Amino acid sequence: MKAVISLSGGMDSATVLALAASEGRKISCVGFNYGSKHNRYENLAASSLADHYKVPFRLIDLSGIMKGFVSNLMKGEKEIPEGHYEDSSMSLTVVPARNIIFASILAGIAWSENAKEVWLGIHSGDRAVYPDCRPEFFAAMNEAISLGTDGKIRLKAPFLSINKVGILETGLKLKVPYEKTRTCYKDQSISCGRCGACQERREAFSLNGIEDPIPYEN
Amino acid sequence: MKAVISLSGGMDSATVLALAASEGRKISCVGFNYGSKHNRYENLAASSLADHYKVPFRLIDLSGIMKGFVSNLMKGEKEIPEGHYEDSSMSLTVVPARNIIFASILAGIAWSENAKEVWLGIHSGDRAVYPDCRPEFFAAMNEAISLGTDGKIRLKAPFLSINKVGILETGLKLKVPYEKTRTCYKDQSISCGRCGACQERREAFSLNGIEDPIPYEN
Repeated sequence: MKAVISLSGGMDSATVLALAASEGRKISCVGFNYGSKHNRYENLAASSLADHYKVPFRLIDLSGIMKGFVSNLMKGEKEIPEGHYEDSSMSLTVVPARNIIFASILAGIAWSENAKEVWLGIHSGDRAVYPDCRPEFFAAMNEAISLGTDGKIRLKAPFLSINKVGILETGLKLKVPYEKTRTCYKDQSISCGRCGACQERREAFSLNGIEDPIPYEN
Repeated sequence: MKAVISLSGGMDSATVLALAASEGRKISCVGFNYGSKHNRYENLAASSLADHYKVPFRLIDLSGIMKGFVSNLMKGEKEIPEGHYEDSSMSLTVVPARNIIFASILAGIAWSENAKEVWLGIHSGDRAVYPDCRPEFFAAMNEAISLGTDGKIRLKAPFLSINKVGILETGLKLKVPYEKTRTCYKDQSISCGRCGACQERREAFSLNGIEDPIPYEN
């Protein structure tokens, strides 16, 4: 069975890709350039991960369409907040309807490519801050996509109830090349180590007793 | 309260626009170029309708993103079928996930523009053929968008349970300039009069006892 995977280039979607590959799925990966500060780095990471797994990667440009979507994550908007991933300051990084839009486009691509599933990397650590990562959203979106495609497409989020610590535990067993992933939200090639995304990642490596293979500014 | 309206340039969305205007809503209109054969004609109609109602109109280009979406409606694909709108041949004009994608992007735009509602022109005549126009899809999509935007945005489809005959009846009272609308699916400036979309439109005018103000080839 073929799956279309939303591949951002971060740890979570890299592990989703590894999991789908380990299950023998036929795979097609899609990344999005939506105008965020870290898009160019995460898109490069996604492309490199797809090469590693020898699967096709398509980059969809939404930067024109999502220009004007208010979020500190977006280029030209205010600074990326520093602090813990679950802090209220992180709500400044919410991008309006981002996963709703991604899932919808992926459903259309999946239908057109005769895939039956769209796999997403959303996880339990995202819940506090991002409304379009919560289980109740996922269930409703899955229902909408199933009904709107006449049952052709369903969503899968294998880590919906697992946090980044658990994702990393799974990924280490699957030998995910985490040195190729990009997590930091900032517009700089070397990860800052201080934004919420970096902090959550470093915590996950620390709790798994493993050294993070990527360099940090801090 | 501000509403973002999906304005295709057809009769249904023109009437939705007229209805929202008659209710005193602040309005912003969005059209999509998704690569269909009739896009250029319907986008021109949409722009002209927005001018008529003195509301802003933004055209979103999805033609690159939706290239490869299999449907006879799309440029470069097979012929538009002729026959009645509810005939099985019309299922060839289904565009994968089209309304799922449109509703999602409109939700993001609405959030970013501080609108609370997204209005869609889907109606009961669309049900037989288009899965993403059915009431059960609409309910699930509305729920997904509400949950995924933290309750900021809701969908409205004022004609969900009304057919084109009823829409026209409403629109005539609202003095919708139907001469500015475009319905035909074909890639030609003069409407063909024979495709399912033309036939449904002509039937609606006929049943309302009114002459359709646009010219037809047939």
